[in-house]
Amino acid sequence: MGNTFGTLFRITTWGESHGGGVGVVVDGCPPCLELSVADLQPDLDRRRPGQSSIVTPRKETDTVQILSGVFEGRTLGTPISLWVKNEDFRSEAYNEMAEKFRPSHADYTYHAKYGHRAWPGGGRTSARETIGRVAAGAIAKKLLRLRYGVEVLAAVTQVKDLVATVDPERFTAAEVEANILRCPDATQAPAMIALIEDARKNGDSLGGVVLGVARGVPVGWGDPVFDRLEADLAKAMLSLPATKGFEIGSGFAGVHLTGREHNDAFRNIDGEVRTLTNRSGGVQGGISNGETIYFRTAFKPVATVMHEQDTVDVHYQNTTLKGRGRHDPCVLPRAVPMVEAMTALVLLDHALRHEAQCGRPGTA
Amino acid sequence: MGNTFGTLFRITTWGESHGGGVGVVVDGCPPCLELSVADLQPDLDRRRPGQSSIVTPRKETDTVQILSGVFEGRTLGTPISLWVKNEDFRSEAYNEMAEKFRPSHADYTYHAKYGHRAWPGGGRTSARETIGRVAAGAIAKKLLRLRYGVEVLAAVTQVKDLVATVDPERFTAAEVEANILRCPDATQAPAMIALIEDARKNGDSLGGVVLGVARGVPVGWGDPVFDRLEADLAKAMLSLPATKGFEIGSGFAGVHLTGREHNDAFRNIDGEVRTLTNRSGGVQGGISNGETIYFRTAFKPVATVMHEQDTVDVHYQNTTLKGRGRHDPCVLPRAVPMVEAMTALVLLDHALRHEAQCGRPGTA
Amino acid sequence: MGNTFGTLFRITTWGESHGGGVGVVVDGCPPCLELSVADLQPDLDRRRPGQSSIVTPRKETDTVQILSGVFEGRTLGTPISLWVKNEDFRSEAYNEMAEKFRPSHADYTYHAKYGHRAWPGGGRTSARETIGRVAAGAIAKKLLRLRYGVEVLAAVTQVKDLVATVDPERFTAAEVEANILRCPDATQAPAMIALIEDARKNGDSLGGVVLGVARGVPVGWGDPVFDRLEADLAKAMLSLPATKGFEIGSGFAGVHLTGREHNDAFRNIDGEVRTLTNRSGGVQGGISNGETIYFRTAFKPVATVMHEQDTVDVHYQNTTLKGRGRHDPCVLPRAVPMVEAMTALVLLDHALRHEAQCGRPGTA
Amino acid sequence: MGNTFGTLFRITTWGESHGGGVGVVVDGCPPCLELSVADLQPDLDRRRPGQSSIVTPRKETDTVQILSGVFEGRTLGTPISLWVKNEDFRSEAYNEMAEKFRPSHADYTYHAKYGHRAWPGGGRTSARETIGRVAAGAIAKKLLRLRYGVEVLAAVTQVKDLVATVDPERFTAAEVEANILRCPDATQAPAMIALIEDARKNGDSLGGVVLGVARGVPVGWGDPVFDRLEADLAKAMLSLPATKGFEIGSGFAGVHLTGREHNDAFRNIDGEVRTLTNRSGGVQGGISNGETIYFRTAFKPVATVMHEQDTVDVHYQNTTLKGRGRHDPCVLPRAVPMVEAMTALVLLDHALRHEAQCGRPGTA
Repeated sequence: MGNTFGTLFRITTWGESHGGGVGVVVDGCPPCLELSVADLQPDLDRRRPGQSSIVTPRKETDTVQILSGVFEGRTLGTPISLWVKNEDFRSEAYNEMAEKFRPSHADYTYHAKYGHRAWPGGGRTSARETIGRVAAGAIAKKLLRLRYGVEVLAAVTQVKDLVATVDPERFTAAEVEANILRCPDATQAPAMIALIEDARKNGDSLGGVVLGVARGVPVGWGDPVFDRLEADLAKAMLSLPATKGFEIGSGFAGVHLTGREHNDAFRNIDGEVRTLTNRSGGVQGGISNGETIYFRTAFKPVATVMHEQDTVDVHYQNTTLKGRGRHDPCVLPRAVPMVEAMTALVLLDHALRHEAQCGRPGTA
Repeated sequence: MGNTFGTLFRITTWGESHGGGVGVVVDGCPPCLELSVADLQPDLDRRRPGQSSIVTPRKETDTVQILSGVFEGRTLGTPISLWVKNEDFRSEAYNEMAEKFRPSHADYTYHAKYGHRAWPGGGRTSARETIGRVAAGAIAKKLLRLRYGVEVLAAVTQVKDLVATVDPERFTAAEVEANILRCPDATQAPAMIALIEDARKNGDSLGGVVLGVARGVPVGWGDPVFDRLEADLAKAMLSLPATKGFEIGSGFAGVHLTGREHNDAFRNIDGEVRTLTNRSGGVQGGISNGETIYFRTAFKPVATVMHEQDTVDVHYQNTTLKGRGRHDPCVLPRAVPMVEAMTALVLLDHALRHEAQCGRPGTA
Repeated sequence: MGNTFGTLFRITTWGESHGGGVGVVVDGCPPCLELSVADLQPDLDRRRPGQSSIVTPRKETDTVQILSGVFEGRTLGTPISLWVKNEDFRSEAYNEMAEKFRPSHADYTYHAKYGHRAWPGGGRTSARETIGRVAAGAIAKKLLRLRYGVEVLAAVTQVKDLVATVDPERFTAAEVEANILRCPDATQAPAMIALIEDARKNGDSLGGVVLGVARGVPVGWGDPVFDRLEADLAKAMLSLPATKGFEIGSGFAGVHLTGREHNDAFRNIDGEVRTLTNRSGGVQGGISNGETIYFRTAFKPVATVMHEQDTVDVHYQNTTLKGRGRHDPCVLPRAVPMVEAMTALVLLDHALRHEAQCGRPGTA
Repeated sequence: MGNTFGTLFRITTWGESHGGGVGVVVDGCPPCLELSVADLQPDLDRRRPGQSSIVTPRKETDTVQILSGVFEGRTLGTPISLWVKNEDFRSEAYNEMAEKFRPSHADYTYHAKYGHRAWPGGGRTSARETIGRVAAGAIAKKLLRLRYGVEVLAAVTQVKDLVATVDPERFTAAEVEANILRCPDATQAPAMIALIEDARKNGDSLGGVVLGVARGVPVGWGDPVFDRLEADLAKAMLSLPATKGFEIGSGFAGVHLTGREHNDAFRNIDGEVRTLTNRSGGVQGGISNGETIYFRTAFKPVATVMHEQDTVDVHYQNTTLKGRGRHDPCVLPRAVPMVEAMTALVLLDHALRHEAQCGRPGTA
């Protein structure tokens, strides 16, 4: 029952790496939205393997089909079922995984929890599962843009020790897409890409940080006390594979400041309540305050490396395992659309929740 | 609808700072558990104001009453309603807050979202709301201990720039309670406490980091893909007031390592599958792997400071505001039982979910 | 976890018959609604014991307190906690119930399920639990009336074999309250009341039927395919104590007609789409069609009778039990506000859900 | 968001009549259950069109594919995605429906609610939606049988005015399948079948009653106060197309009895607590009591008839409409597997919920 996300705009993903495909059912989508494959495929293409020299060379087109919920080009208000067939799988590359648990992967925990495991390609633990999220997120992004003027963006801002300079207020989608890393700092990006290419050549892997941003979010989204906007964003990010941390606004660095230094002063600017600084990250008390929402998510280095490592087999005997097959040396470029998708899903859900409770203030 | 947390062990908190009290309804508690006020009050006492020189001097006893769900000393399996009356409130200390929004507080966002706001004492945004969580968490902690042998602990490990040395595997509850800061590093704690006392004297405030730990969690808890254990922990932590970040295991620091350096090798140790390192933080693929679960939560410096600050009033006009009344210079010592409570709530919920789906493997 | 009802306007009830009271937490209530005890108490008074000669003579005033969620007379948008203390309980009247299971009550099933049972007054199985529902329902009724012009009514239409003539389109609240039975058929009511009084004198009990009605519901409420309006109403009614059946519109009698006879023809009447008949009961395909919603709920005869009956004790040994204490000979008059409350809760929840998904059609 | 049913064993259906197919995602299924198409297809065949002379002659095979969640013949514990392609659709038969609302169908309410409607074949309102339920229900039935020894059955017991004699305790699946009506009363069935054939010849339609039964349910399933077993069954039944009523145990007829007459006496029979009668229908206080659960669901006569009827068009102008195409004269034979499926889904969900909360009583 952990495969559903959202309350009012609710997605349920399904599928394993090497089975009949992966997909998602989107329930609660407002009706009458123009929607076609052309709205979904671009983000799937940003997520798919084989798109550049720093991601896995697997050759999947990840072509999405809309099986339901759209009629004559517009959404019906009924569930939207999206499906991507699995194409380029070579189970033989994984044969050894049938018997051995990959270190720092989910093989062992799935085996222990369920007593049964789809080992080819990692089964359900494969990042292919995120296809459904990205497709559903593309719908959410479109709704946020059309109905609320909200723009959702993400970008790579750190690879290993290399930190880019990216202003959450200002970087553009075009800048993100300007290089294969999806890092809008044109100065720093080449060195970061070179670092990843080195890791790939060495059979090693790297991690880093993705910045998520939402601009134009109106005041009032978020549902304290448990469903604070930052709490749901944190859950959304930590539900992505390979994530180890989340911070919003000033984050962990904010603890180095005192209250006087950290507080965001309010000012009336052109008739609107604004903050002069944005250490809050656009959220106060769990509710959006109208400033840009920004947060950072840490992705660990990819667990599959092309070196012999100590592990145990399914009989819990000590052994070693060396990664084979075609893998990402760094998940970050493909994680960018995932972060955008999850961000959009959280925001749209809260937009609808806000309207349900507070949409018509003062009328009662 | 954001005031409920958990699926099977489900809590709903209610109450404002200066109203008829605060409380919680716990639904789904297993029956026949011995339970009395004595199980709940100790953690509430660790959370309450006035307990030491580095927290707010307000004089609330926070005495809890069990209104339902327990009969003849044992739980009934029906909802447990817990209530703490509000005692020492001085609304006049807040009169100015009726008219002005405190910077980096939730006054403005609540005002804008709901169009109406319980300004005395912060209303629903007061940390008094966490009383219900801590009380419910005490029940969860007891169940985790008795049924599963799981120990949940938290500790302060950083105040501003001062970082304590605390081993997640080894520190004890006694060490945590050995000083008023709840920092088990006896060497570092005095300097940290002095730092907080300085901040208090200066009318300023500090933030820091709380480490959360769960030891003895069996393999298999967690519900991918969205309800991964770390995702639900992240949400739980970010739902606490004043939090800005969460990281599990290697966290943000982990991105500085390569995959080869970061991976946790599996070994059979005395017949059990163990990892030689624990950069995963006890969770792999969203499921506990039997190692100690540990994670860090960043708390920003307290927003209320005793200095004039720029802000706006309820008519959105520029003005200034200076904190008055009795406030915490640092939320950390009181946050420790909150982190423990939320951790226990997440773990127990997943324990029950795991048993529901996988509790009797192989029998079908 | 079965003590919560509703998705967006969500209630959680708690409390046992003889404990610290009964209550409810209402989450998701729109803010800025004027609300005071005066809005809640009238329906509680219609539900309370001792109100007439045909209900139990227990002397509880069921005075409600608002503990949270309302400030300066208006709702805050945060949880509304309502509490009614238990007053007139005489546990000694139930001493025998500690040892014996009352036939057709929930004593045995609670004992077997939970292994522990609050036997005084029936504990959680007491109809006192419905106090929380009725109080929350009063809020929902007020919102439905003010925001949507929807009127929710219920009435007794059958006692044992005596069937009243009541037109769902026309009877009024005043007619319902005109007699102690809450049957708007002034001709039939006296005989029905006499029947109940006879049953009471004989130590026996009666059942009957309550008609629920909602007038003025706009087209479009209801959420197929599972959360059809009639499905949620059916669940709401069958969640009330002592209910055995639900039918909407033509109900069970409708199966005697052919399709040609049963169908409701559409006609444009004064520019609105209307049906010439209303065998659908105001709902088609799970969505309200603008006609009056009406449905019938069957209540079985009260299980407690003042006669020796065969049963078993807690050691599962055969024995006999005779009802003692003060009991309702017929639950119907007190069930009327319960049916209204549950109806209002279902409708308001669907109103909010509808607005969340479809509230701004065509804007995307 | 109304397309998901269940809490722990949770299904989400999707699909329209004439789109890319219909399907269901099942989340929460216990792992390691042997499962193949052979477990699912038989119930789909009992549901499909064209199976006999008294149902629609459409020629769909309704062949199910398992897209995920099963590996090497056993369930993985991850979501099971099931898909049935749409085959024999003739949209031209529905062309008139693009412009006109069928009386007593959901055309008008969907049009009004969503502002957009998949008119071919009824779109989402088609009974094809139940394919997903029946497929998921087949899994639930298998689990109930293997893990708990619970048998779920349904049967037609009334067509228009003809009432069969069927004992809930005794009829068998073989008797149900012995005739095309699925009525185990071999004496009465031929007349009922003849009645339906007459209706078909006359272009008219009939309704009736389906009896649902669960035998072998252990004591303790059901989750008061809102998620009582009968409440969830009522919702499940009323969520099926064309249903107008639900009654459990004595149902509406029970109101004709007094409490003394109606109560089920408890007796110890061979060491077990049993009731001598079963007017409770196997549920007391919302919890199963170990007796056979039985309930009746009323299905209205099919709305599509081959006669001219008054209606309005999409411009809300008066017009007439005559049914065309291939329709069921009576939904009952095909409703039997639907009732079984929904019953099984409710029971299995409560089985898992019961184990989560009470599965290990006394251990705490």
